[in-house]
Amino acid sequence: MADNRLVAVETHDIRFPTSLHLDGSDAMSPDPDYSAAYVVVRTDAGDGHEGHGFAFTIGRGNDIQTNAIASLAPYLVGRPLETLLGDLGAVYREFVYDSQLRWLGPEKGVMHMAISAVVNALWDLKSKRAGLPLWQLLAAMSPEEIVALVDFRYLTDALTPAEALAILRERVGGRAERADELLERGYPAYTTTPGWLGYDDDKLRRLCVEAVADGYHQIKLKVGADVTDDIRRMGIARDACGADVRIAIDANQRWDVDVAIDWVRELAPFDPWWVEEPTSPDDVVGHARIAAAIAPVAVATGEHVQNRVVFKQLLQLNAISFLQLDATRVGGVNENIAILLLAAKFGVPVCPHAGGVGLCELVQHLVMFDYVAVSGSMDNRTIEYVDHLHEHFVEPVQIRQGRYLAPTAPGFGATMHAKTISEYSYPDGPVWRSAANGVRSGRRDD
Amino acid sequence: MADNRLVAVETHDIRFPTSLHLDGSDAMSPDPDYSAAYVVVRTDAGDGHEGHGFAFTIGRGNDIQTNAIASLAPYLVGRPLETLLGDLGAVYREFVYDSQLRWLGPEKGVMHMAISAVVNALWDLKSKRAGLPLWQLLAAMSPEEIVALVDFRYLTDALTPAEALAILRERVGGRAERADELLERGYPAYTTTPGWLGYDDDKLRRLCVEAVADGYHQIKLKVGADVTDDIRRMGIARDACGADVRIAIDANQRWDVDVAIDWVRELAPFDPWWVEEPTSPDDVVGHARIAAAIAPVAVATGEHVQNRVVFKQLLQLNAISFLQLDATRVGGVNENIAILLLAAKFGVPVCPHAGGVGLCELVQHLVMFDYVAVSGSMDNRTIEYVDHLHEHFVEPVQIRQGRYLAPTAPGFGATMHAKTISEYSYPDGPVWRSAANGVRSGRRDD
Repeated sequence: MADNRLVAVETHDIRFPTSLHLDGSDAMSPDPDYSAAYVVVRTDAGDGHEGHGFAFTIGRGNDIQTNAIASLAPYLVGRPLETLLGDLGAVYREFVYDSQLRWLGPEKGVMHMAISAVVNALWDLKSKRAGLPLWQLLAAMSPEEIVALVDFRYLTDALTPAEALAILRERVGGRAERADELLERGYPAYTTTPGWLGYDDDKLRRLCVEAVADGYHQIKLKVGADVTDDIRRMGIARDACGADVRIAIDANQRWDVDVAIDWVRELAPFDPWWVEEPTSPDDVVGHARIAAAIAPVAVATGEHVQNRVVFKQLLQLNAISFLQLDATRVGGVNENIAILLLAAKFGVPVCPHAGGVGLCELVQHLVMFDYVAVSGSMDNRTIEYVDHLHEHFVEPVQIRQGRYLAPTAPGFGATMHAKTISEYSYPDGPVWRSAANGVRSGRRDD
Repeated sequence: MADNRLVAVETHDIRFPTSLHLDGSDAMSPDPDYSAAYVVVRTDAGDGHEGHGFAFTIGRGNDIQTNAIASLAPYLVGRPLETLLGDLGAVYREFVYDSQLRWLGPEKGVMHMAISAVVNALWDLKSKRAGLPLWQLLAAMSPEEIVALVDFRYLTDALTPAEALAILRERVGGRAERADELLERGYPAYTTTPGWLGYDDDKLRRLCVEAVADGYHQIKLKVGADVTDDIRRMGIARDACGADVRIAIDANQRWDVDVAIDWVRELAPFDPWWVEEPTSPDDVVGHARIAAAIAPVAVATGEHVQNRVVFKQLLQLNAISFLQLDATRVGGVNENIAILLLAAKFGVPVCPHAGGVGLCELVQHLVMFDYVAVSGSMDNRTIEYVDHLHEHFVEPVQIRQGRYLAPTAPGFGATMHAKTISEYSYPDGPVWRSAANGVRSGRRDD
């Protein structure tokens, strides 16, 4: 390994025309085209292993995100694998603290997602070379090694390295048993499939009934466009699911603080399990006010939370009862370990954001690592599941009776089929060369 | 105008090799190359007017930022000037709420700065066509027209449109007198020129003495790399400036919350006027804790605050005593009007971030508009001034006796000389083609 180097960084702008069927439609994103700004890193090791990673976007702008990832190639190409893969904590910090690139964030938005894609691709490569799924690779590291992966800057008023070490050490006992349990029984899932805003009432009812029959104990409904519609749809869902199934609602940032409080109170009689993204993901103070006002309905957020500093504040202010980390928005595996440790410190369950393109494939590794080595708990924890686009991945997630089966293939699960990469490349792939789809993406409809 | 259209969007990656002299060096940015991701919009009006705008960056990554701006061209080219310039509130919202692009933020980082550059270029064009400097164009608008420029989403728990209207109406009387006062006496400035971290003690002392002789009542010192150095440098500055000159200190996000509190207490005997960016710009809760702990030393921040939602929270939590808006980080003129209104509502003085490339040229318009039409006050208000790179602008700021003279040329002040654009274009301009500079930027030093 000492002699081998990273020799190429290849990027692809991959888009799926999901807007054709209103899959993924919500109060702020009426017609997303689920997309991936995709990166492959290659080495000269001759072992057949590549690192794959991506940032998830929803269509227009995926070119900007892909360009940003491509711009990081000079930081990687030609470097020895030993330093790149041997200390991913250092590599992560090198990107985040590049003093000039940092101005573009810091640690947020396009630049941070680009770093995320590259860091995750390196983790994918490292796991494949180790012959382990990422969750097992991480869960085999010592508490000291795990702490070294984390950047504690801006966290120490809430979590010190010593506290993180103590959390991890407490969980060393029982790691093997919990890993076995995951391999045997998997991890609980909930499904968002029934609840997209673009679906009519009959489809909503039918999909709710199917979800319960499939073994799910929780579903999620998109809300926030029209309160009368939401009351009716929530009624249908509660009726179709019965009293024992948890129904989460998701406003996708649609509301101002006071509107959120009023709207959720209207839906409270239907016993929502949590309300997700009630307002701006940047508004930690607003989330705290909403949480206090709508209790016992819980607040959840995270898919647009830009970094660990914002999660820290949400936890400090008791603003969230469920933390929904995202695999590709913050700075990759390293920052998500920081977030898992913060959640463990504050005793808040992590229920990752998934769906999109390949997010289910990624986040399962993060929470399975959490179960084995960080929180040690599945109580009130569940991974979002949406049954879109899994067929494009070489190792798609496996769901049985409402649970994610533990992945056993080496890597982080990000690898798409070569055929998908060529067919869905935008704008030149065959799927997009047809006029009907070409008109829909990359340009505004107005 | 009804028949005229926007016909071209041209972008330039412009970088200045400022790292050669350590101008701009601070605790997080030891060797910035001040840069502009620059945009020019052209029309078919045949009147000679172009709109110029840019996002300021500090070197590497300026290509990513420039690409992001270029990606917005299809949203602009071919559109009638009447709709583009006639309702810039609608145009701003169109960009910010593009449901697919929004995923890349929302409202933060590279995408938001790209929107900022374009929105500011349109304001520049509109002002030039009106034959007015931007501050006078804005100050001639009715309270209702100004409120229509603002996006109140996520603000209404702190500032409603009705409250904003009341603030603006209260200032309609006296607008003409305040504009005349600005034209006659200008607006107070403070200077950061003496205090860069890379300067030695003799240079610091000499520049402090010069600043006072030049009429400045406030200077700023970069701190945060080493507390012993900072105590010595602060002593030199206080000695050179005397007791009556305000000395602000600027940590550029270097500290964790508790470190900030301890460090500022060490410097408190030298009577710092404010401490700027003590920690992460994302940490509103941390800023509030620091502010409470170090009072009466004041906290200031803003140059990296990503949008109005974060400023809202800083104000709600009494976390800042001075608000340092930035001309190119948030969504352009429109979002900065929201921020000026928030500051007025909470009674917090706005003291803009400037320096960089062309930021002085831009922010003077914003606070002069504020003085005429929003806050109506100059109390404790001052614009940062750094004497770098003004020679590259067609209408450079004019400073006399520590005050900005009110700009009178039509436009927003962003227009660079054509010669600058060609000479400093990266990587092909003549300045960068020389090996000495070419090695320094666009690639890491390690």
